[in-house]
Amino acid sequence: MNTSLLERRHRLLGKAAPLFYDQPLHIVRGQGVFLYDADGREYLDAYNNVPVVGHCHPTVVQALAAQAAQLNVHTRYLHENVVDYAERLTATFDASLAMAVFTCTGSEANDVALRMARTLSGREGIICSSSTYHGNTAAVDELSTIFSGGRTTSARVRAVPFPESYRPLRGLGGPALLDAYVAEVEEAIRSFEAQGLGLAGMLVCPIFANEGLPEVPAGYLERVARLVRQAGGYLIFDEVQAGFGRTGRMWGHQCAGVVPDIVTLGKPMGNGHPIGGVVARADIVDAFREHVMYFNTFGGNPVSCAAGLAVLQVLQEEQLLANAQEVGAYVARGLRELRATHAVIGDVRARGMFWSVELVADRNTREPAPAAAKAVLNAMKDRGVLISRLGPFDNVLKMRPPLPFSRGHADRLLETLDRCLADLHV
Amino acid sequence: MNTSLLERRHRLLGKAAPLFYDQPLHIVRGQGVFLYDADGREYLDAYNNVPVVGHCHPTVVQALAAQAAQLNVHTRYLHENVVDYAERLTATFDASLAMAVFTCTGSEANDVALRMARTLSGREGIICSSSTYHGNTAAVDELSTIFSGGRTTSARVRAVPFPESYRPLRGLGGPALLDAYVAEVEEAIRSFEAQGLGLAGMLVCPIFANEGLPEVPAGYLERVARLVRQAGGYLIFDEVQAGFGRTGRMWGHQCAGVVPDIVTLGKPMGNGHPIGGVVARADIVDAFREHVMYFNTFGGNPVSCAAGLAVLQVLQEEQLLANAQEVGAYVARGLRELRATHAVIGDVRARGMFWSVELVADRNTREPAPAAAKAVLNAMKDRGVLISRLGPFDNVLKMRPPLPFSRGHADRLLETLDRCLADLHV
Repeated sequence: MNTSLLERRHRLLGKAAPLFYDQPLHIVRGQGVFLYDADGREYLDAYNNVPVVGHCHPTVVQALAAQAAQLNVHTRYLHENVVDYAERLTATFDASLAMAVFTCTGSEANDVALRMARTLSGREGIICSSSTYHGNTAAVDELSTIFSGGRTTSARVRAVPFPESYRPLRGLGGPALLDAYVAEVEEAIRSFEAQGLGLAGMLVCPIFANEGLPEVPAGYLERVARLVRQAGGYLIFDEVQAGFGRTGRMWGHQCAGVVPDIVTLGKPMGNGHPIGGVVARADIVDAFREHVMYFNTFGGNPVSCAAGLAVLQVLQEEQLLANAQEVGAYVARGLRELRATHAVIGDVRARGMFWSVELVADRNTREPAPAAAKAVLNAMKDRGVLISRLGPFDNVLKMRPPLPFSRGHADRLLETLDRCLADLHV
Repeated sequence: MNTSLLERRHRLLGKAAPLFYDQPLHIVRGQGVFLYDADGREYLDAYNNVPVVGHCHPTVVQALAAQAAQLNVHTRYLHENVVDYAERLTATFDASLAMAVFTCTGSEANDVALRMARTLSGREGIICSSSTYHGNTAAVDELSTIFSGGRTTSARVRAVPFPESYRPLRGLGGPALLDAYVAEVEEAIRSFEAQGLGLAGMLVCPIFANEGLPEVPAGYLERVARLVRQAGGYLIFDEVQAGFGRTGRMWGHQCAGVVPDIVTLGKPMGNGHPIGGVVARADIVDAFREHVMYFNTFGGNPVSCAAGLAVLQVLQEEQLLANAQEVGAYVARGLRELRATHAVIGDVRARGMFWSVELVADRNTREPAPAAAKAVLNAMKDRGVLISRLGPFDNVLKMRPPLPFSRGHADRLLETLDRCLADLHV
């Protein structure tokens, strides 16, 4: 590790600026699904979802470079790129989701989505899940229950227990479990109304990524969608992690078969270039723009849209959704096999090229094993494979590689994980 | 104009997505201080401050392209660029402003600055000016008095009349005028305290750019800085427009000689690439990061920092601050000469390469002439020069070109303005 670089960083960015791993990595180069450190050591990247079509994909790099040399300016002049990109992007959604508002980050997208819901409903209450994170602006941070033990710090946000089957609410199962999770949403709506705040909307990740990618009781999203709309609220899906092919479908909500009113986008949208956005019903965008002068200086600029267009092109040309399905299922099978030999694996969950492995101290009590998760991800790094962890107990291994992840890469991931899990027992 | 492009844009982005000019421009290429439309027509760009070192500057484009081909990843791994950039950036400030937090936009920078002030003071009240705009997030939008006739819509934000000498408060002048503007800030602090909200801070542009670049009574910023700090609040300067050499000094607040606690940056920072940031006292950043898990996925990535570094390099190599001073003063003289021949010019104000020309129906009553301002900026566009307008009455011509603006460009700007003003009388 580069000690003087770390010291300078501490001095200039602060000691608490987040860094991965007990011994931080000094990464200097990326290519495809690999990252390389300053000593030339190669790491298989099974963590980074932002470079969705692979680190430094030449099609994206060339699109960025060519457009940056030609023109980069705001959207108050006409330009093809922002229109072409909005057209190709909205074409990947249900026909009702027909308009786009571009931002620079997923945080900005969620911030403007909350503004839309609150402005158009004339109400304040937002429902989120009990173990989530949607971004860093002041308004969006009110939903960051993952840092606050599931509680919200704002009266205008209520967290409901996220739907899951591994540690089910009150130990319930079957239809009773679904009913119980839905009843929590009903109760949140009722309490907003009783307080005079009313319901503006519900904002969730359609695959509950930060919650640990739980197995969601079938029918949950349909039923809460109905409740939210009956109460006059807007259903907002955060596709920042779930979107752009991650699940093997273009959008996470397509797995659930529920069409939201507003979708928010970010992270993989420009393969690392700062671009985010909202895709929503045309009547919502029109009404919002009538009420609010929203302008984003960099949002939708020709360079950002060139990156966005290039990502859509590569996803299609390289058939990365099909790859996410196929290699995703292959890894999921491999992880389930590992569960047979490693008692520490309590549960394996998968959605396309997104896998979570829940580590537990005891399979019967399902007591979380966060220290084991931390040990495994540091050991994986030492063996040249990058993963992370997540979930309300920080005990869930999080694997979410760039989508051009092959069976060969998958084998290396699985073999390395097998070894690191075995080392836990030593 | 490209009608089908406009129609597609209306359908995909909404009719109310902001566009400049009665007949929107279709810009396809930029170079230095020039923009080119789809018909190959050249426009002298006297509006765009974002491409501060000139449209598509090769040094910036090459830095972006090279780094994008090498690595683009978040800052939870060590990388030189974010540290080098933070070091060179903070070196341009007073020694007390020693740490940086990177974001992707000026809006995100102001949002995190407000979070810092509120989190660390434990109070809620923010003072802003009566005709301002600091960005588009929900929290920052509470300060957008420019869209609401000077009023704020939030109890936790109070607008004070911005300091000026052309339409002075209650017709006062001299020391009494300064006292009156300062007393408004005192009163805002007192009322926050009376309400139990307390003062978290004051956020202003140090040159009051959106307010129309007024002549500020000498000593105003010193005195309000003292008041804000005495009340335990943080002084935040928004350098999104004023910064990166615009005024002929690196930072707008250096003209006033007042060092703030927190500075926010955006627009010109990456010459169009989406990058923003906060520079603040180290104790503020450290304390904030202890309290708040702030992470920005794209903020401070190697590509964004490569763009930021290239901008600092070009500002220095091409001596653009000296150019802003010299050509800035030349244009200011020219505008004052135009005032002698055009009665519609009520006032001319300048700060380096930023000029505002206040148009009035009557020099004695100083009645604003917004229709004249609109006519002039559309006529300027028809004659191949791009400017805009601003201020509480939309009657102030706003000119703020890329900094490599020469005397030759200045002559073209002045001659075109002379003609367009003359045409007003026809």
